[in-house]
Amino acid sequence: MVLYFVGLGLADERDITVKGLEVVKRAARVYLEAYTSILLVPKEQLEAFYERPVIVADREMVEMEADKILEGAANEDVAFLVVGDPYGATTHTDLELRALDLGIPVKTIHNASIMNAVGAAGLQLYRYGETISIVFFTETWRPDSFYDRIVANKKMGLHTLCLLDIKVKEPSLEALCRGKKIYEPPRYMSVNTAVEQLLEIEEKRGEGVCGPDARAVGVARLGADDQLIVAGTLEELRGQDFGAPLHSLILAGEMHHIELDAWERHRAAGRDA
Amino acid sequence: MVLYFVGLGLADERDITVKGLEVVKRAARVYLEAYTSILLVPKEQLEAFYERPVIVADREMVEMEADKILEGAANEDVAFLVVGDPYGATTHTDLELRALDLGIPVKTIHNASIMNAVGAAGLQLYRYGETISIVFFTETWRPDSFYDRIVANKKMGLHTLCLLDIKVKEPSLEALCRGKKIYEPPRYMSVNTAVEQLLEIEEKRGEGVCGPDARAVGVARLGADDQLIVAGTLEELRGQDFGAPLHSLILAGEMHHIELDAWERHRAAGRDA
Repeated sequence: MVLYFVGLGLADERDITVKGLEVVKRAARVYLEAYTSILLVPKEQLEAFYERPVIVADREMVEMEADKILEGAANEDVAFLVVGDPYGATTHTDLELRALDLGIPVKTIHNASIMNAVGAAGLQLYRYGETISIVFFTETWRPDSFYDRIVANKKMGLHTLCLLDIKVKEPSLEALCRGKKIYEPPRYMSVNTAVEQLLEIEEKRGEGVCGPDARAVGVARLGADDQLIVAGTLEELRGQDFGAPLHSLILAGEMHHIELDAWERHRAAGRDA
Repeated sequence: MVLYFVGLGLADERDITVKGLEVVKRAARVYLEAYTSILLVPKEQLEAFYERPVIVADREMVEMEADKILEGAANEDVAFLVVGDPYGATTHTDLELRALDLGIPVKTIHNASIMNAVGAAGLQLYRYGETISIVFFTETWRPDSFYDRIVANKKMGLHTLCLLDIKVKEPSLEALCRGKKIYEPPRYMSVNTAVEQLLEIEEKRGEGVCGPDARAVGVARLGADDQLIVAGTLEELRGQDFGAPLHSLILAGEMHHIELDAWERHRAAGRDA
């Protein structure tokens, strides 16, 4: 039959599309990709809404047990749920290729992802340049290659969407050393941490693209009832409380007057909070 | 109560989210924005599925009759449906601001749009630069300002999404002269026309970013059962039949090996068709 990649959208169990829900209801098995992003609700809430069991597929399972996921898919539908849109990450490419190799057709049911819903921040979507990822700095690893991309985007007057690190099911260092499967608790980078890291790199590189006065927008829990969008300089956002994950950050390029109006409006949201 | 902007997604009536459908079912009035994009099914199909009447809102209505759309929204919900994601276009900003002025809360229900679903073409979403729009050339108006943006994206190795012109409810020249309301039939730019126009501008500007050998991907009816994704050089795509609208075109920047694999796979789709 068909391997369906079904986008779940951004926030909760009711962000799935009607088409996606129909697939989930009739699929032989339902997997949930749970390592590149998260919904803002627990798995049990999805299962109650779908009235179906959901198998959490971690990175290991998708990489090592693709054939098990695809088992029987020649005769019945298999649904592979992905938070946001299925094409937001490339981690499913292997699974897709494996299915195509086996002659199993693959279909995608699209949904919103941070890549398009970030338009809600008030900066026009078509004026974004390359998207960057900011990973948690460690004592010894403080990568700053994204800085060049911010510089390039700024030179063209473009906005930069910064995707903030998510660490889910990372083996602890101790566990790695002992060969045991013990995982660190999940960590989600806050706007505040991202701002601190950007300011540190700006200090070091000094091209003036993400210093304290740089204009930005912080976004939290996009698409949820309690979503928060606050604009400000990086200095202003550094101390802004954005609450629970997930967070994203946008560095503004040149703003047209409609964008500037929206930025000022979202800046007021920070002062009111 | 609330003014809801509800994204409809890409193809048909079942691409709405469960959350969006709940809003449509309970709203006092349901409007459909019908001038920046189209669904691939007629309005009547939406109405049958929603079991609700849908009022088509053209540009004139949204610009001139915002207060009428918002009438009663202080006491009951109003749903304003937008193909794709509500933040794909900025045409609703006025309506949103008008609502906020009147103290009416505004909520957005996101959905897939070409801006993120184009990931299905196999080129990684985070490596796209500024998005460009290609408008129908006329005898006397052949704007090529997008060319500079393609050049800038190419210099950074980035892909360029080209949104192709849609002309819906354009007053005919004759009608404009006579002050009558007569409209041209709708026109949707094909990949083929876009390619012709790009080749013409390349001929004139000569920086080698969109000549016959430039690598690209054409996309038609994304998200529909009969969607078509074909990769090729612009020379190859020039003669490829993509069928009914809507079409989009991607100019490839530097491709990583996974992207190149996908491009070759989608190129084969053209030869098979």
